[in-house]
Amino acid sequence: MASTLQVNLGERSYPIHFGKDLRALIAAGHVDPLSAGRQHAVLVDETVARIHGAAIDALLGNSPRLALPAGERTKSLDVFGRALDFLAEANLGRGATLWVIGGGVIGDLGGFAAASYLRGIRYVQVPTTLLAMVDSSVGGKTGINLSTGKNLVGAFHHPSAVLIATDFLSSLPAREFAAGMAEVIKTGLLGDAALFERLEKTPLRPGAAHLEATIRRCCEMKAAVVEADERETATQGGRALLNLGHTFGHAIEQVTGFSRYLHGEAVAIGLAAAARLSCRLKLISEAEVARVETVVSAHQLPIRLAAPLEIGALMAAMQHDKKVRAGRLRFVVLERLGAAATRDDVDPELVRSVWNDIGAG
Amino acid sequence: MASTLQVNLGERSYPIHFGKDLRALIAAGHVDPLSAGRQHAVLVDETVARIHGAAIDALLGNSPRLALPAGERTKSLDVFGRALDFLAEANLGRGATLWVIGGGVIGDLGGFAAASYLRGIRYVQVPTTLLAMVDSSVGGKTGINLSTGKNLVGAFHHPSAVLIATDFLSSLPAREFAAGMAEVIKTGLLGDAALFERLEKTPLRPGAAHLEATIRRCCEMKAAVVEADERETATQGGRALLNLGHTFGHAIEQVTGFSRYLHGEAVAIGLAAAARLSCRLKLISEAEVARVETVVSAHQLPIRLAAPLEIGALMAAMQHDKKVRAGRLRFVVLERLGAAATRDDVDPELVRSVWNDIGAG
Repeated sequence: MASTLQVNLGERSYPIHFGKDLRALIAAGHVDPLSAGRQHAVLVDETVARIHGAAIDALLGNSPRLALPAGERTKSLDVFGRALDFLAEANLGRGATLWVIGGGVIGDLGGFAAASYLRGIRYVQVPTTLLAMVDSSVGGKTGINLSTGKNLVGAFHHPSAVLIATDFLSSLPAREFAAGMAEVIKTGLLGDAALFERLEKTPLRPGAAHLEATIRRCCEMKAAVVEADERETATQGGRALLNLGHTFGHAIEQVTGFSRYLHGEAVAIGLAAAARLSCRLKLISEAEVARVETVVSAHQLPIRLAAPLEIGALMAAMQHDKKVRAGRLRFVVLERLGAAATRDDVDPELVRSVWNDIGAG
Repeated sequence: MASTLQVNLGERSYPIHFGKDLRALIAAGHVDPLSAGRQHAVLVDETVARIHGAAIDALLGNSPRLALPAGERTKSLDVFGRALDFLAEANLGRGATLWVIGGGVIGDLGGFAAASYLRGIRYVQVPTTLLAMVDSSVGGKTGINLSTGKNLVGAFHHPSAVLIATDFLSSLPAREFAAGMAEVIKTGLLGDAALFERLEKTPLRPGAAHLEATIRRCCEMKAAVVEADERETATQGGRALLNLGHTFGHAIEQVTGFSRYLHGEAVAIGLAAAARLSCRLKLISEAEVARVETVVSAHQLPIRLAAPLEIGALMAAMQHDKKVRAGRLRFVVLERLGAAATRDDVDPELVRSVWNDIGAG
């Protein structure tokens, strides 16, 4: 059941097309308008290229192709340079389109390359992980990491179109699927109590009939938030709400060198931490914290650190987060299950005690 | 005689403040509104930092400072990474302002760093060369080079303000002043016959009384072009006209590895080449070509290659220029002295013969 969701951002508006697989999306006529009469190049996750090579050939023929490994280390300045050299050596002009096929890492890197090459060319995003489908398809945030911190460099650059083919998820490792569920659970927690309750009732599995509808719902929710606060300039609430669980999660990734936890796993622990912080701020009850933890756990995701990390290092990593404003940490907290808010006035001692609760020492 | 020119680009509008020196600009009250209550960092040309250190101290106190060498090689991905690390290590937040003090190279690099760090922070540009004052102060083009070509990577990111202090030019080497004059002459040629005729009558020298007015005139002209075609999307004319002399000039820089000629010197040869091409297209006369060459020469600028370069290499370098559209070179030609137009249909043989005319072999 192919469908299309329009992300409404004025002249930066674009469609997200949903379908079973790339062939179905081609058959539905969603690809022709993107490709007619243009130069193309492809940036693709090397595992996806191996498994889905034939489908990509059907989509893009013999366009120049660069395959890159997934993993946060690909989001480096060095690999960014390799991607740019690839585009320049393919002699792509300003009218060209870059196809970015892979998970969040390839998407963020490829989007930033498209944003920067010739000061910006078009790109089409083909997310192949659940995380990328629900999180990276909307928002236009692209970027890379510095050794000092994650996503410190990048651009706002929206794709010209997104193609979501749910069949990619059938070849996705279970751990990757679970990681994507962290963002789905986050979406329910910050703005859709009914979605959270459905996940509470029946955990979402890869083959579920309502998988496409759930992904679409997450894209819709995110689109609504981004449409209202495109550049994350709202002084409170707005786009920053999407960072629920991420201030803790980013710090965990940073301190563990982006290798111990997948992004979604760090966010899962971050969601548990944000729930505990919200409870310490007397916004939600202990019972509600338990409900959050139960749903996260039911989706094969961690709610505590697997091994202790040093609280001082975690607190220092938080200070490097982009959400720091004039030295003050900004947290996203739960007002209830299904509604979030930003808070700039959280006592660092509370934060330390939350770190302690989830296994830091 | 301090004055201000407003560049009108909707919510991206900004002022260019003109004055004798930084102290005069501070005294005129142009600096306070830029600096009140913000975090600052400074990216500065190392020579400028040495000569004008006291003035910069007066402007920016002990804000974190990174000094970099001028020269095209600074516009590399490596130095871009150094600048970003500097910003991250200074722990600059989203509300911070980067001050970029130097010539075109530091301006382009610093502007791109400001565009990319945290997906974009504010920057104030303090151009210290004539070239940067007349060319980089308006337009928002920032960027770096790849080994494949110049300015292939970057962003459109307008400054929050530009401070033009003409006294910086008194310490500028004569060769650098002359290089800036190439862009002044270009401005006259493409859109202000009266400016061209003034330069024809009396070459502009560093101490000239009307220096500030001439710089301001160039900024005004460029602002008018940019305001009408901010993202260079016009199918003909528009912002591309500012590239008069640059298709030839970039190829010369590329083939000589950015070391033999200053950018302005390559553009000067490019202006002579563009005039010759326009003559071969029967748009202007031989006598008008001679007038162009005379004005360029009178400003201590070259009109021919100092040593022969291989025509094949120059033609190949042109193909990598961003102005290539679907394999076709786009040239800016003179319809008369004071009016330019874009042309996509130029016979490559004509281009080869122009290269030959100006000393390629």
